[in-house]
Amino acid sequence: MTLLSHIAYPGPVARWEPNTRERLVYAALDLFSEQSYDATTVNEIADRAGVTKMTFFRHFPDKREVLFAAGQEIHSRILADAVAAAPDSATPLQAVAAAVEALSATFRDERREFSARLLAVIAASSELRERAASKHLGLVAAASAALEKRGVPELTAGLAAELGLRAFDRGFAQWADPASRQPLPALTRQAFDDLRTATAALDW
Amino acid sequence: MTLLSHIAYPGPVARWEPNTRERLVYAALDLFSEQSYDATTVNEIADRAGVTKMTFFRHFPDKREVLFAAGQEIHSRILADAVAAAPDSATPLQAVAAAVEALSATFRDERREFSARLLAVIAASSELRERAASKHLGLVAAASAALEKRGVPELTAGLAAELGLRAFDRGFAQWADPASRQPLPALTRQAFDDLRTATAALDW
Repeated sequence: MTLLSHIAYPGPVARWEPNTRERLVYAALDLFSEQSYDATTVNEIADRAGVTKMTFFRHFPDKREVLFAAGQEIHSRILADAVAAAPDSATPLQAVAAAVEALSATFRDERREFSARLLAVIAASSELRERAASKHLGLVAAASAALEKRGVPELTAGLAAELGLRAFDRGFAQWADPASRQPLPALTRQAFDDLRTATAALDW
Repeated sequence: MTLLSHIAYPGPVARWEPNTRERLVYAALDLFSEQSYDATTVNEIADRAGVTKMTFFRHFPDKREVLFAAGQEIHSRILADAVAAAPDSATPLQAVAAAVEALSATFRDERREFSARLLAVIAASSELRERAASKHLGLVAAASAALEKRGVPELTAGLAAELGLRAFDRGFAQWADPASRQPLPALTRQAFDDLRTATAALDW
């Protein structure tokens, strides 16, 4: 039984129906999986979610944003808040590690299969791969800006943020693997440790 | 007198006219500067360059690619070739430094003003900023893959490549500044040194 099987696709529903946004996301992911991202139209996504095209556009500016819009904003905020909340004594990398830990903790194991399908859909579309790359850089920028507010020099802040998001991306890809059994925070911590070792081994 | 003032925009020209591609790039940059990226159509770019829309599409898949398509491919190749050509004794970062040096050396100071206008146009458009981010990641991937072919472990290769392209981007932004007087290779070397210092100072 899949997570997605929990999602019912009722017929057209009233505008005040809750979770419209979530239904649009699941409908889009299903359609992108079934018939490819390129072949899917906004009309089809709206139909599948049981809403009008106009409702779709109240939630998302275009087809590409369905899988990214919410995450980009929320994840940026989680990272920035956690960096800001780190103790004054925390080094830049410790603050970033706390932020990546906070972000990882929001992904419960029930989302693992959804995430696996999401990564598969992204991998199959150059447009979505590009959007994912842009999200990565946006999250790096958010974490970096939060570090700079703590007085960390720009260059160090950018490097620490990049290392943190690399750890997250790496842990996330492992976590989404159906064979994976560990929770995401453990995997991102491990990835952070691996990156630390690799960075220390860089021979200038 | 500007570099762009050297570019004449003749009327419609025959298909065998050389430098069509270059004229399209300059026409696009002019139009994006004058009236914004969003407001410019492929038809206008083709008109300004004195070619048909069909000719435009023989060179570029869409408006967004005009400023990126050629560079992405050529720069990836320069980086990969230079990494491959580094002596066996070179560390991953030394191989990347040689690659960034090779790439930087292709930007002669005559291109400085063009580059300044290019960066301004990119900064003004979210779509072009995203494309530039994607190019950055593409170049990192190209350098990283070339390092892996030398036997460098994936994690180390990715970090070394990222540091190299960060040095390049940083040097490039300084070089494009009209106040800058140094050639690009000197600026990217300096940026590489600064990044080395910042990386060494990362306190895990």
